[in-house]
Amino acid sequence: MPYALYYWPSIPGRGEYVRLVLEQAGAAYVDVARREGNGAVLAAVRGDLGGVPALAPPVLKDGELVIAQTANICAYLGIRHGLAPADDGGRAIALQLQLTIADLAAEAHDTHHPVGTGLYYEDQREEAKRAADSFRRQRIPKFLGYFERVLGASGGPWLLGEALTFPDLSLAHTVEGLRYAFPRAMSSFEDDIPGVVALAASVAALPRIAAYRASDRCLPFNENGLFRRYPELDDPSPPLEGVVRATLP
Amino acid sequence: MPYALYYWPSIPGRGEYVRLVLEQAGAAYVDVARREGNGAVLAAVRGDLGGVPALAPPVLKDGELVIAQTANICAYLGIRHGLAPADDGGRAIALQLQLTIADLAAEAHDTHHPVGTGLYYEDQREEAKRAADSFRRQRIPKFLGYFERVLGASGGPWLLGEALTFPDLSLAHTVEGLRYAFPRAMSSFEDDIPGVVALAASVAALPRIAAYRASDRCLPFNENGLFRRYPELDDPSPPLEGVVRATLP
Repeated sequence: MPYALYYWPSIPGRGEYVRLVLEQAGAAYVDVARREGNGAVLAAVRGDLGGVPALAPPVLKDGELVIAQTANICAYLGIRHGLAPADDGGRAIALQLQLTIADLAAEAHDTHHPVGTGLYYEDQREEAKRAADSFRRQRIPKFLGYFERVLGASGGPWLLGEALTFPDLSLAHTVEGLRYAFPRAMSSFEDDIPGVVALAASVAALPRIAAYRASDRCLPFNENGLFRRYPELDDPSPPLEGVVRATLP
Repeated sequence: MPYALYYWPSIPGRGEYVRLVLEQAGAAYVDVARREGNGAVLAAVRGDLGGVPALAPPVLKDGELVIAQTANICAYLGIRHGLAPADDGGRAIALQLQLTIADLAAEAHDTHHPVGTGLYYEDQREEAKRAADSFRRQRIPKFLGYFERVLGASGGPWLLGEALTFPDLSLAHTVEGLRYAFPRAMSSFEDDIPGVVALAASVAALPRIAAYRASDRCLPFNENGLFRRYPELDDPSPPLEGVVRATLP
């Protein structure tokens, strides 16, 4: 039976992390709300599929099992499809990296919603400017410098070394999201993170990922998602002195 | 060999979620920085223990394995010490709940740091007031109402039914953290979440947890941690109409 994915049908959002694992795995899946609309997502979150309810999408149904939380779903799928280490210790390290990527994505989201997800961006624009400044100049360099160090520790080309695992797909997508949302800030320091840049390019060149991106299954970034391009939140100001350097190997 | 936990020695913070699993498991562990100070935490984060570096503490060392990310460590320990379901599907549901608790804790933190973790609270106090208002009136009721529904779906008394698992310990700690930080807001709607309130009391009454709390291994909440009592961020305004009710079973 194919997996059933329940996620908003109009944005890449957090669902994209799951879609990328499914696509690279070559797994059969139905992106249910692309056919049935938002109501299917709301029903899945409410618990109508059985099991425990979810606080938010994405939700994945695998036979009788229904699970939520993006990093959890990615790990579950990665383990089942050869995109995770074979041993418990290695799997814990892969999940550590995935959760760190999830933290970065959540902070990217919070730049446009620093006061609260229940309010519109337009109602928190001034706070968003301050939050985005801090995110661009301190947090992006800190996180991406960190992943550069992880690549240094593993020897690359992937985060855990020679084998592609699920957090590689997620890191690449996050880099692309950050480039979409903060193109000026990102271009100002990508030279300092060559390993991360190369990893993102390598993921984009994977045949299954390239085929997915060229298909109508893949949705473009837009201003309702996790990564939003609000030019007033981007800026070419360089990272705060020492932030990238302090986290590099 | 006992586990080695590396976390800031002056706050409960995210380390407390790990400590509670270790204590309830009756596992031998050393809270390294309580003896050696902050430098031990910085070394662990930097990767000096081997393996991949961490972005932030807590870090757990189990023999040769070094892992980070709070929810990941809790799941790892829970599986090894009978505080998780035995099957992969059940474990994924437990991790889903743990990650949802982690989201709630992160949002609690962000009420006092809505602009950025790199700035002091005093430099973002006005933004914090708006963020806390949204958190108290929409997000706490949404999350705790959600866990009330999970208890309804499982039949209780624990989140996954009859067996205590690691997310129960974390939910109880989060409820106590929220009571510490937002006593007026919490008291205004605890009557609506009797299952969650009972779960928190049941965790506090577990003999090993009670003994831990009475020991000097347990640190009290304070204003450097995840949950901070800033009276200006608390308020008895009731939850927005319908927020709790909409998420109840």
